This record gives sequence, structure tokens and C-alpha cells, in this order.
Amino acid sequence: MRIGELARRTGVPVPTIKYYLREGLLPAGERTSPNQVQYADAHVRRLKLVRAMLEVGGLSIVAAREVLAEVDSPARTVHGMLGAAQSAVTRITANRGTEEEWERAEREVAELVRRHGWATKPDNPGWKALVQIVLTYRDLDRGDLLALLDGYAEAAAELATAELAVLAQVPSTDGKVESAVLGTVLGDAAMAALRRIAQEDASRRVQRQPHSA
Amino acid sequence: MRIGELARRTGVPVPTIKYYLREGLLPAGERTSPNQVQYADAHVRRLKLVRAMLEVGGLSIVAAREVLAEVDSPARTVHGMLGAAQSAVTRITANRGTEEEWERAEREVAELVRRHGWATKPDNPGWKALVQIVLTYRDLDRGDLLALLDGYAEAAAELATAELAVLAQVPSTDGKVESAVLGTVLGDAAMAALRRIAQEDASRRVQRQPHSA
Repeated sequence: MRIGELARRTGVPVPTIKYYLREGLLPAGERTSPNQVQYADAHVRRLKLVRAMLEVGGLSIVAAREVLAEVDSPARTVHGMLGAAQSAVTRITANRGTEEEWERAEREVAELVRRHGWATKPDNPGWKALVQIVLTYRDLDRGDLLALLDGYAEAAAELATAELAVLAQVPSTDGKVESAVLGTVLGDAAMAALRRIAQEDASRRVQRQPHSA
Repeated sequence: MRIGELARRTGVPVPTIKYYLREGLLPAGERTSPNQVQYADAHVRRLKLVRAMLEVGGLSIVAAREVLAEVDSPARTVHGMLGAAQSAVTRITANRGTEEEWERAEREVAELVRRHGWATKPDNPGWKALVQIVLTYRDLDRGDLLALLDGYAEAAAELATAELAVLAQVPSTDGKVESAVLGTVLGDAAMAALRRIAQEDASRRVQRQPHSA
């Protein structure tokens, strides 16, 4: 199909498709004559995946490109894909606090991981992010919020088991890889969205209680 | 204190502090002489909150400014603060699909909300985000991932109840407002980080099983 048809089938405007081509998010089409480039069904699928990552998952162009490089790597594994998708969605940039504060926060995270019996390594992108979050709570004297982390951890463990079970049922490797990307990128967005709704509900219920502030 | 002392106490470089002042994220200090501006402890606190939102929570400057406007509003309530913080962290921009697809996704979200007995309105920022996510899963023929949403919803409900309970124990309104902001902004980041660790653990366990792909 030509680029206009690709735009029609995906709802992505032609200039945006050209931008993605330049940014390396979409492989080039096949030039069949000096003035004509043909795109295939694989382009439709890839374009939808790119839009899902950028618009719904909130990834940057750079992060999306990193995930796609892993998707297209011949050596890809589902475990490796999960890692790439996880690194891409973990956007914490800070690296603050004294060495002593950092070590204390790191110890607290290590204890949390041990409490939940998790087999993980400190190079997991979530680990460093969590150390940073613990440090921030402490820095703002909000140690009380740390009490919530065990509940988050229990929920995360249950969700991960359910996610991997869904992934195991996907027949093809292509499908598994795509599910790993979508499950991580859109799964975070879905969890955040549901938290918004649940928080509104909980907040309303608290407001209705007498004697509550 | 002078700006150099403010930088020392927060670890934020002077040019960055000046940038935050220009962007309206930090209120101006008090000019005590033509060459001297004094900052107070409230500036230290605010600066830490700004850094937490931008660096650890991943908010944009614009989103952080919106949250702070609500924090500083005389009419603020904890319920209102939660709403502002929730809108700021919900960054989904897409609005795609045909009217029919959109209505179908909206019905599915409405059913999910009803199944979980939530009192919420369709203007909740999570609602529209969730419709978009359902639409994206359908568009990519990954209806199987929708099966995960009920698990996410259950976890979200439990976490929201725990979060509101922590919030209720914070004595001052200032503290409650700050907890609502941090609980939402950093709570999402904490949940995402813990999901990374739990997913790595689950993925390792699946890999170790014989006969699994």
C-alpha cells in the first residue's frame, strides 16, 4: 500500500508517519519506482505499536526506539524484552542524597525485596527507582508513606504472576514480545488509571464519614 | 537565608533554583536590600516538593505548576488536591478510534467500574485514560490482556483504602495536602518500580520451568 493508505488504515497523519520514519521508529517501505514506496501489513502493525507506546504509554521517542531495537533484535528473548520495556518506562532521573542516606534507603529496599522473597538483582530498573523514592519520602519527612510499600509490593507480586500467565498463553514469539511490551507499557498506565478511580471512590467514602477532616 | 544557602540545604544548583523561580514553581524570596534576597524554611520545603514531583514523579513543569496552584489555593480540600495531582500524573494524550469503538470501550470501562462498586464519574482522569487503554488493546488485537484489568482494579481498590488511611492520620492540612500529592505522584512511581522487580522475579520463575517457552 502507499503511504496515504497506511495513514488511512492507522489514523496516523502522513506527516507524522514521515516523522516516525525519520526517527527510525518505523522501517522504510519498499521503493517500487522512483516516485512510489510500498508499505506492508507489518507497517500497519508496527505503527499501531508505536502509537500505543508514545501516546497511551507516554514513552519518549528515544525510549520507544530502544524498546523497538530490542523487539527487532535477532537475539531477543521474552525475559530480555521485559527488561528493555521496563527500563524504557522507568523514567526516574534523580540521584540525590548523601552516601549515607543512599545506603540506608538501599538497605530498606533490600529488606523489602527479601521480605517478599523476590529473586532480583540491584541492576533491575525498579530497584534504583525504589531507592530514590524511599530517599525522597525520608527527605520530605514522610516516613509514614513508606508503610504503604509492603501493600504495593504484595499487589505487584500478584499482578506479575497474572501477567506472566497471560503471556505464557500467547502462541507465537512475535505475539509474546508484543505482549511483553504492551503489558509493561500499557499495564503501568492501566494500573495508574485504575488507581485514580479507586482513589476517588475511597476519598468520597472518607468525606462522607462524620468527624473526618 | 540567601540563595547559595538554599542551594546547599537542598542540593539543587543555584541556576536550577532561578529557573524554578522564573517558571513560578517557587515563590519569590523577600528582597531585603537592592542586592539581597532572603529565602525561608518554606522555600526549602517547597523546593524539595518540586524536585520530588519533577525528578522522581516524572511530572512536566506545566503539570507541577498546576498541582502547586491547587496546593496554594485558599479553597483547597484534600479531595480537590487528589483530583489535581491525579490529573497531573495522567498523561495520556491519544483520542483515537471510531465513535463505535470508543463507545464500546467506554461501556467496558463502565462495567468494570460497576463490578467493583466504585462511586466515580466519567470525568475522573483515570476513566478516560482507561477507555483509551481498552481501545488500544482492542486495536492491537490483544483482548487477552483485558483479562488482567480486574486484577489491577482489585489491587487498586486495596491500595486506595490503605492510602486514605495513612492520609487520615496526618495531623495538619498542610501535611495532608503534601501527602496527597506525594502519595499520588510518588505512589504511582513506587508501584511501577515494584512491578519491575516482581515481573523480573516472575519471569525468572517461568524461565526455570521445564517445557515453557
